[in-house]
Parts: sequence; C-alpha cells; structure tokens
Amino acid sequence: MMKETGNRFPSRLLEEAVDEFASLPGIGRKTAFRLVMHLLRRDPEEVKRFGEAVTRLRNEVCYCKICHGISDNPVCDICSDSARDISLVCVVENVQDVMAVENTRQFKGVYHVLGGIISPVDGIGPSDLTISLLEERIKEGTIKEVILALSTTMEGDTTNFYIYRKLHPLGINITTLARGVAIGDVLEYTDEITLGQSIINRREFTLPGKSS
Amino acid sequence: MMKETGNRFPSRLLEEAVDEFASLPGIGRKTAFRLVMHLLRRDPEEVKRFGEAVTRLRNEVCYCKICHGISDNPVCDICSDSARDISLVCVVENVQDVMAVENTRQFKGVYHVLGGIISPVDGIGPSDLTISLLEERIKEGTIKEVILALSTTMEGDTTNFYIYRKLHPLGINITTLARGVAIGDVLEYTDEITLGQSIINRREFTLPGKSS
Repeated sequence: MMKETGNRFPSRLLEEAVDEFASLPGIGRKTAFRLVMHLLRRDPEEVKRFGEAVTRLRNEVCYCKICHGISDNPVCDICSDSARDISLVCVVENVQDVMAVENTRQFKGVYHVLGGIISPVDGIGPSDLTISLLEERIKEGTIKEVILALSTTMEGDTTNFYIYRKLHPLGINITTLARGVAIGDVLEYTDEITLGQSIINRREFTLPGKSS
Repeated sequence: MMKETGNRFPSRLLEEAVDEFASLPGIGRKTAFRLVMHLLRRDPEEVKRFGEAVTRLRNEVCYCKICHGISDNPVCDICSDSARDISLVCVVENVQDVMAVENTRQFKGVYHVLGGIISPVDGIGPSDLTISLLEERIKEGTIKEVILALSTTMEGDTTNFYIYRKLHPLGINITTLARGVAIGDVLEYTDEITLGQSIINRREFTLPGKSS
C-alpha cells in the first residue's frame, strides 16, 4: 500500500478508513480522503448501512450450486425459475456477462458461469474454472444445447476450443454467438476481421418486421 | 441515486453493495460494480476490516473540544501536546488544511478548525462555523496571535473580514499568510493579482542561508 510519507493524520480511525479505500483498485489516497470526508458528513445510519453492506457482501454472498454464479441462496433465482428452459445453457465467463445477457431479455435458458477464462499468462488453467462441473451437468441428460458466449479474444477462443473438445463427445448441440457488424456501427471503422467474417457468414436479406 | 433501468442483479447483497459505493461522490455504477467484484475476490478478513473501518469511522471519530478538528479523543494530539505554543492559533477551514500546515513542519502553535467557510451561495453563515467558539477561546486570555490561514477566494476573504471584525476588539495580534509568487513558479504564468501583490509587498533581498 503506497503511503505519502509525513502525512500525519489527526485521527487513527480516519487514517485507517483512508487506507482501506486507498487499497481499492483505481482509488488513490487523495480520492480515498475525499470519500472518507464525505462519509463523515453523512448520516451515521447511512454510513453504518455502508459498512454492513460491505461486510455482509463478503460473508453472506454464495455461489449457485447449479450455475456457479453469484447468488444469495444455494440455488440462484434464474436456476430456480421454472419458466426458464433448463435444456439450453449459456456458458459465460462471469456474473457481469450473465447480467449483460439478461439485460437483452432475449434469452430464456439458464447459465453456466466459468469463473474466468483460460489464460496461461495469468496462470489460469482449465482446472481453475468450472468446466468439469459443466461436463457433469451435461451428463445428467437434461441439457440439449450449450451456447458458448465468451469474449472474442485469444483467451476466449482458447477456452471455446477446450470446452468444445470436452463437450463434443457428449452428443449435444454446441453453438456460439453470431459475430458480425454491430448494430449502429459505421462500416468504415469496423475492423477487417469482423467485416470479413460477416461477409462469409452473410444471411438472406429480410424486410424489417419480417425477420424471425 | 441514479440507477440504470433493467439491470437485474443476481444477488440482492451484491446490488446493495454496488448501490452503497455508487452513492459516493465521483463513483458511478460501473466503477462501483468493479470495486465490489474486487472486494468479493479479496480475503474475507480484509473485507471485514474494510466494513468495520467505515462503521467505526462514523461512530467513534469525535471532534476535539478545543480546536474542533477531527480526533480520536475529546482533546486531540496537537492540543494535548505540551511542546506546542498555545498562545499562537492558526485558523483553518478544515482538517485537510490542518494536515497541509502540519506537513510543512514549520508551525509549532495550535489550530482552530472553522468547519467551513462563509458561503451565502451554499447557505453557510457565520453561525454554522466555530467562530463564536474561537472568540470564547481568546477571551480565556492565553492566546496572543491568531493567523488567518483561509483560501484566497472571495469566500475566504469574506470569512477573514468577518473574523477580523469579531476579534479586533479583543486586542490580540491578527496576521495572515504571506501571499506571493509560489516557490517554483514561472513568473510568466503567475496571475497578475498575485504578481501585483508580491510587488507591493516586496521584501529586502537576502542571500540564501542568511534569511531568518
């Protein structure tokens, strides 16, 4: 923890709170000090709620035993929702990606959260992820299709390839997200690989409102 | 509290923690989410310490009954330090300014923290500050000199003027910080008011090492 030398705090409690905020990524000591001074001016009840939210977060949050996403209960709201199609599983890297897909309101299946992506540089191998648990889930026999929804980076492609090799013998459909020119993108500024792929994977033109 | 609509969190605890961080000034919901995800990956003991530091800060920090600065005890370390000159009082706006003066290691007197500055725009009048408590302190008879060390803004000047009028009848020395070209400043880029004042208040040239 970086510390400006000679900065003598008039209160140890103040210094400790500044130290804690400054330990967060992207927050320097000046910002930490500003945040702490803000908290000191707030209502004591509000600050108590802040402190408790942080403590409870780490102590009480758990991981869903089916999809391994962050949850308040042993089985998350999505996995326990009987309206969702449990034969269709979307494989994502983390809970942010679950939220991104949920926000589209286009997906009625369930998820499998890998908890990361294969990245030898960061020392993350297949055994650090929930890939073998995905295999076990599929062997139970309910899952018919797995959508690989990982980032289109080298690490994402490596992870896709690894999972594909593991799941292929299990005889289920393995799909991936459509890649192409994003809606609202100017063609001139679209990278050549995306544009090239979207020409190869071109689809029949349909009039607006007539597309499925 | 601004909230992106339709952002469905998989965990209420997660959402609460994000809400709390996003309520801090200058922290948006994306940054709040990033900070919370960081805390989830940290050691539970560390996160507990974070939460407790926040709660204890607001509950246990008090204000020194002499200088009204932030303190862990009813009388702060500076006011209870017998090596300091209690006849010399530096009047500052807040605890950050106490720390700024302390860091110069040039001041051996004590402080009086106003808790703000007169600012009609923000609805802060003299009665919101500790000015009358400063008068009482002076009437006790120990204080010989008061240094007004407020910002050189219109609000600072207004506050200086108000305090001067209140303290003048009490027969003590009232001084203010020297204003002039900052050390390291390039003359070309110094604003004309500062430069003009520093010409009017010019002092005798002394060779380095010979100045008092």
